[in-house]
Amino acid sequence: MKQSRIIAKTLKEDPKEAKTKAHKLMLRGGYIRQIAAGVYTYMPLMLRTLKKIENIVREEMNEKDGQELLMPALQPKELWVESGRWERYTNIDGIMFAFKDRRNGEVSLGPTHEEVITDIIRKEIKSYKQLPVLPYQIQSKFRDEIRPRFGLIRAREFIMKDAYSFDIDEEGLHKSYMDMYDAYNKIFERCGLNFRSVEADTGAIGGSSSHEFMVLADTGEDTIIYCDKCKYAANQERAESKLVTHKQDETMKKMDMVYGENIVGVTELANFLQIPKWHTTKTMLYQADDEVVAVMVRGDTSVNEVKVQNFLNCKTFELATPERVKEVTGAEIGYAGPVNLPDNIKLLADNFTKNRTNFECGCNKTNYHSINVNFERDFKMPIFGDFKLSNKGDLCPRCDTGKLKETKGIEVGHIFKLGDKYSKTMQCNYLDKDGKEKPMIMGCYGIGISRIAAAAIEQNHDDKGIIWPKNIAPYTVHLIGLNLEKEEIKNQVDKIYEILKNKGIEVLYDDREKARPGEKFSDSDLLGLPIRITVSKKTLSKNHIEYKTRENNISLQISLDEAIDNIQS
Amino acid sequence: MKQSRIIAKTLKEDPKEAKTKAHKLMLRGGYIRQIAAGVYTYMPLMLRTLKKIENIVREEMNEKDGQELLMPALQPKELWVESGRWERYTNIDGIMFAFKDRRNGEVSLGPTHEEVITDIIRKEIKSYKQLPVLPYQIQSKFRDEIRPRFGLIRAREFIMKDAYSFDIDEEGLHKSYMDMYDAYNKIFERCGLNFRSVEADTGAIGGSSSHEFMVLADTGEDTIIYCDKCKYAANQERAESKLVTHKQDETMKKMDMVYGENIVGVTELANFLQIPKWHTTKTMLYQADDEVVAVMVRGDTSVNEVKVQNFLNCKTFELATPERVKEVTGAEIGYAGPVNLPDNIKLLADNFTKNRTNFECGCNKTNYHSINVNFERDFKMPIFGDFKLSNKGDLCPRCDTGKLKETKGIEVGHIFKLGDKYSKTMQCNYLDKDGKEKPMIMGCYGIGISRIAAAAIEQNHDDKGIIWPKNIAPYTVHLIGLNLEKEEIKNQVDKIYEILKNKGIEVLYDDREKARPGEKFSDSDLLGLPIRITVSKKTLSKNHIEYKTRENNISLQISLDEAIDNIQS
Repeated sequence: MKQSRIIAKTLKEDPKEAKTKAHKLMLRGGYIRQIAAGVYTYMPLMLRTLKKIENIVREEMNEKDGQELLMPALQPKELWVESGRWERYTNIDGIMFAFKDRRNGEVSLGPTHEEVITDIIRKEIKSYKQLPVLPYQIQSKFRDEIRPRFGLIRAREFIMKDAYSFDIDEEGLHKSYMDMYDAYNKIFERCGLNFRSVEADTGAIGGSSSHEFMVLADTGEDTIIYCDKCKYAANQERAESKLVTHKQDETMKKMDMVYGENIVGVTELANFLQIPKWHTTKTMLYQADDEVVAVMVRGDTSVNEVKVQNFLNCKTFELATPERVKEVTGAEIGYAGPVNLPDNIKLLADNFTKNRTNFECGCNKTNYHSINVNFERDFKMPIFGDFKLSNKGDLCPRCDTGKLKETKGIEVGHIFKLGDKYSKTMQCNYLDKDGKEKPMIMGCYGIGISRIAAAAIEQNHDDKGIIWPKNIAPYTVHLIGLNLEKEEIKNQVDKIYEILKNKGIEVLYDDREKARPGEKFSDSDLLGLPIRITVSKKTLSKNHIEYKTRENNISLQISLDEAIDNIQS
Repeated sequence: MKQSRIIAKTLKEDPKEAKTKAHKLMLRGGYIRQIAAGVYTYMPLMLRTLKKIENIVREEMNEKDGQELLMPALQPKELWVESGRWERYTNIDGIMFAFKDRRNGEVSLGPTHEEVITDIIRKEIKSYKQLPVLPYQIQSKFRDEIRPRFGLIRAREFIMKDAYSFDIDEEGLHKSYMDMYDAYNKIFERCGLNFRSVEADTGAIGGSSSHEFMVLADTGEDTIIYCDKCKYAANQERAESKLVTHKQDETMKKMDMVYGENIVGVTELANFLQIPKWHTTKTMLYQADDEVVAVMVRGDTSVNEVKVQNFLNCKTFELATPERVKEVTGAEIGYAGPVNLPDNIKLLADNFTKNRTNFECGCNKTNYHSINVNFERDFKMPIFGDFKLSNKGDLCPRCDTGKLKETKGIEVGHIFKLGDKYSKTMQCNYLDKDGKEKPMIMGCYGIGISRIAAAAIEQNHDDKGIIWPKNIAPYTVHLIGLNLEKEEIKNQVDKIYEILKNKGIEVLYDDREKARPGEKFSDSDLLGLPIRITVSKKTLSKNHIEYKTRENNISLQISLDEAIDNIQS
């Protein structure tokens, strides 16, 4: 491709609307252009990168006997009502575009395709002999995000690979799941990404277990908790951890309350009472659908709201309003505690609040704090569970010696064991060996194709521009011609361009006659192709070219043949 | 691919919902599945065909310096308001899905992308030096058809290649247009289609001239008029023709009216008056936006409403209601004529009504008919133009000797000269050599990718099934294994499957152990792959295979090596 012909021009300045490095660089390099909030055109260079990612994904999916098909973006309401997700997706979460067609039929734009694929499979597959199957597609998906942001990271229209496995039982599902786990690792490796697979929450998709594949990058929206000793890693939403435990009093003291005016928050309370923070207790009140629920965690930790919501299996979950807190506890906000809570308030407590005696907590009375509180003696036994947020510094939940660390990541893949969640509701059944009808056991597996491109840049760039991993770079070689205003030079560089192309090397040729060398080099750094070959009057006179790698800036003066050998090796 | 693993199963019976052969065969062969009216899943075999068509299109587009990009399906209302098409597309024609997002922004799903590409190009391109450019994309398009039908022929979601050319002047546009004309011919040839390019109406897209590419098939929705002598061919909507003219009276007779009760229609009138039909005149009244317009054509022809609407450049155009006709003419419907029409009624007349003297027409009086009518003497001169429908049997408008014939076609491609229609309205300008700002001169070029697949089947099938043209068949070879219940046979056929695959031959392997030979052969005919290789106990014992071509049913008993040679030659 000749650079002078490329439609999108590079920009010298960072566009104001872009917050992250990848977003800025993609706009500056002419890789994408915005049409509306969260809606982008993939310009020619970006489309080449996307096609390369797609091909890597396709090859690894086919390797696992995936069958590519293409489902429509338009989906009828009926299927989503049948699966029970219409309300959540259109109204409660509102993530799905939905509208009426001219015949007054309700349709939506697919943010995901569990319903459609389940409908197809239940009609096509009847017998255990036809299973397992692994249909997948690569397609534009639509999500009506409240806050589209970071360019291709959270867009309203984006390219996704989604796959669905159908098996006869959990064992089959586990094999399919591990196949995809394996394929995903290969895909992200081939894309040249530094990534980590982590245990993850299943969220609105549902199911029993899931892993996310995270590209490590400081600007990631997700926090990953991982062990510094073993392989444990999880999304913070889902991460478990152990806490250091402390020696406790052997006998219970008399419960009492102390006056501490305007002492709100465990740090203030610990200071006020001159006790360690772990000795205190945080009690939060939440509105979970129609009921108010109280959640206790140790004072040196926080509530993990995702875990609590999953445990309660409620549709809406948020902090109770100050008015509601006052109504329930009789006190201003900041003084809630487990003692004297009304009987109808469900009380949850994190496992690590247990095995403490004589602890402190809110008193449900403004400006007062309970001390020497003990389970069972002073209030009804709560429901214990893992309700706390895990943090760096906590102990590893899996091994005995590890400490947890924290890093940021961008989710590029997500695999789920769905089990019979959809197949049971939608009657996607098969006949087993004994002629008995059973629900198929499903998994689903997503990869954000366009997001991979953004994450790759977020992870691989420097001050000057993008540093594309070689397998997903739009072109391998950036051929920079200098002194092209001289016809004999131009002819020779044109010839080198043809030679490279004929060798099957993907090359972008900066053939601009009027651009200055500095401009060409800075554009080249910005675009970020792996190898830069510069040809000028000077190099031609010495019968060599300048060969430079974008990643580590090594510059060699070598012959064209040597360069070609390097590229093809 | 092993046939036992394929998700979609073949059907023995024609599905009731399918009307056309291609639709039936695609459903029966498991090529597509319907999700909602006009909304389909492309199953794995069909997706392979679509990818092959896409690659042919891509290669020929790149050959003409096309640059592939990918624009979003979601489009903001603002761009369509700017181009002036929002009302027509959302309300008047209503072909565009439009809805509000969660932030109350109005968005639509692109049925075409003139607005978006013009917006992109006006921002990226400033100088004549950057022109011409030819961006294109291959993408799912959306159209809210009133009556989706014939499967992939008229679907609400379908795959299209759309390209747009931007030039500095009409001459440049003509070159771009002819490049595309050439590329389209190559594309449809490579797809193995019997097609014809015809002059076409520009419709809602607008612009000065256009050609359609029509796959000839009896079930086509479009009527093509073509000359039996020269190369003239046109969509009937747009076709011109000459009519045989007749000797006329040399002097005008006195105009009169005759009573003919309930004589409505030119055939009845000609019979009643004992005159030839060409001597009579058909006068139709139309409601064109707010005004009523009368259109006269010779009695042996009909009004071409598309031509009249284009001439009037009105938004809505339909036959006037009986009430309106009575209001305007004073007579029941069926008696309209040019004489004594109110002055404010615009009167159009087809060119071939001219040069007649003493002709007959309606009298604007119930049960009465005007005779010996003459232009100018008896009513104001109408506006003459080409307003008639051309039919087979008419004379060719281009050559002197040809007669027009008629055939049916399926439109698979359409190219338009747009000129400055969009660039002027949307200020898509460039600076010319003298620094003067000028609108770019545009063209647009569409190909229905998914429609090609349907049209190919509509044109290439027999009673037993599809006969795929070889370049777009999902696989080249259908390997039929018989007697597979015997393990040693199965092992040998498996080996042949591997050999074919290793030779780079695309092969579908019917590895089903339980299916009977008859079932395998009829499935094979239904699926329609170009070459069938059958291996059984018998052929193995003779050390050959049965090699059969789907198109002409030639069956050979040859060695596997010979077969491979045939396939690869």
